[in-house]
Amino acid sequence: MREAQVVSEQELSLLAGLASTRSIRRYTEDPIPDDDLNTILFSATRAPTGSNRQDFRFLVLRDGAVAAEAKALLGKAFREGWGQKRAGDGYDKGTGAADDSPKARTARAMQQFVDNFELTPVVVLPCVQVRHGGIQDGASIYPAVQNMLLAARALGYGGVLTGWHRLVEDELRQLTGIPEEFAIAGVVPLGRPQGNHGPVRRRPMAELVFDDTWEGQAPWANDPPGTRFAGRAPNKIN
Amino acid sequence: MREAQVVSEQELSLLAGLASTRSIRRYTEDPIPDDDLNTILFSATRAPTGSNRQDFRFLVLRDGAVAAEAKALLGKAFREGWGQKRAGDGYDKGTGAADDSPKARTARAMQQFVDNFELTPVVVLPCVQVRHGGIQDGASIYPAVQNMLLAARALGYGGVLTGWHRLVEDELRQLTGIPEEFAIAGVVPLGRPQGNHGPVRRRPMAELVFDDTWEGQAPWANDPPGTRFAGRAPNKIN
Repeated sequence: MREAQVVSEQELSLLAGLASTRSIRRYTEDPIPDDDLNTILFSATRAPTGSNRQDFRFLVLRDGAVAAEAKALLGKAFREGWGQKRAGDGYDKGTGAADDSPKARTARAMQQFVDNFELTPVVVLPCVQVRHGGIQDGASIYPAVQNMLLAARALGYGGVLTGWHRLVEDELRQLTGIPEEFAIAGVVPLGRPQGNHGPVRRRPMAELVFDDTWEGQAPWANDPPGTRFAGRAPNKIN
Repeated sequence: MREAQVVSEQELSLLAGLASTRSIRRYTEDPIPDDDLNTILFSATRAPTGSNRQDFRFLVLRDGAVAAEAKALLGKAFREGWGQKRAGDGYDKGTGAADDSPKARTARAMQQFVDNFELTPVVVLPCVQVRHGGIQDGASIYPAVQNMLLAARALGYGGVLTGWHRLVEDELRQLTGIPEEFAIAGVVPLGRPQGNHGPVRRRPMAELVFDDTWEGQAPWANDPPGTRFAGRAPNKIN
């Protein structure tokens, strides 16, 4: 396990890591060595949970017998989920009809992601004990998922939090033994990124951060120079 | 705003930050300067959301007119929430009766936290559009909350994700204008930590990380030397 205490110039700083971690859906077939996987899961377990109850559990699927079956089941679900989304959200219509449009590029990347799901080196199922059945249960698992993705980034891996397991949740529970009292909060594939990947894109902070009241302007909240945007650009805000 | 790209030996590494960020509930009265607050909120908005919809919003309460009222309302709720928990969880009974027990120390820290809530320099209300009404809505806000706490740590601040706003949620919405279609995912006070604070304590990884099946042993998952534990110690596992 890598020493988290060591700070070297080679290592990514915390702030730089937060600013540059993005969803990665294309992986090489390189496995993730035990030591690195340990660091990733250790980092996950450092996240906070309600009253520090640590009601979170992480089921790691690698190359065991059950893992292969579970990955196949999830692959099927992901292809079905993406197929529904591709049609429902009109990915092949409008600008999506042009091969070089952002929409078409996204659709190609997503298709490749789901088509190759079974080859993902590591798939983690983050689970959490059901307490309220509402959004607040997520407060005890999604911070850990984010830590996991950030630690992966620190070690040169990437991943993404997805939710298409819900299409096969019963079979997945039966196969892996996840009990009913634990919610499966998502599916996190992890691997070495294939090829280059673009910048993190978000809406301008002015649309997301408010001061004092809802939609109250926060003059101190400004995207740093060079920020790439998704959705409306800052100069298009009225 | 600090340049996230700069990596210096003074800056905390990403892995070290993940391993050492813990909940901070005691703050000095120092304000958080605009630049630092900007970096903290910018980091929050880099977190992933479902389909990158960015349904998250961050309402920041500082020293505006509404902020003062909202902090007072929340302070009342926190004192009520902690009072209930203190009695319900028997913090003053059993080992809690001894002044130097961990239970008594926790109770004192919590009491100080809620008694001084109104003095907290910055309070953030992380909100997210309601889609499913279930845990999965949390996937679009709690990763951002974790980024916020990690960025605070990087800049020498600290905070904690809490949920006692639910006791005064209606009044809070009325006061701040948060619409019904957005869930208030929690309350995050932020400030400069007062005094020293202990290590992150968690259960041994063997209780939290499984391989291949539920409760399947993960021989590769081991806490690094020096890890501090909460709950059962590793040598007490059967």
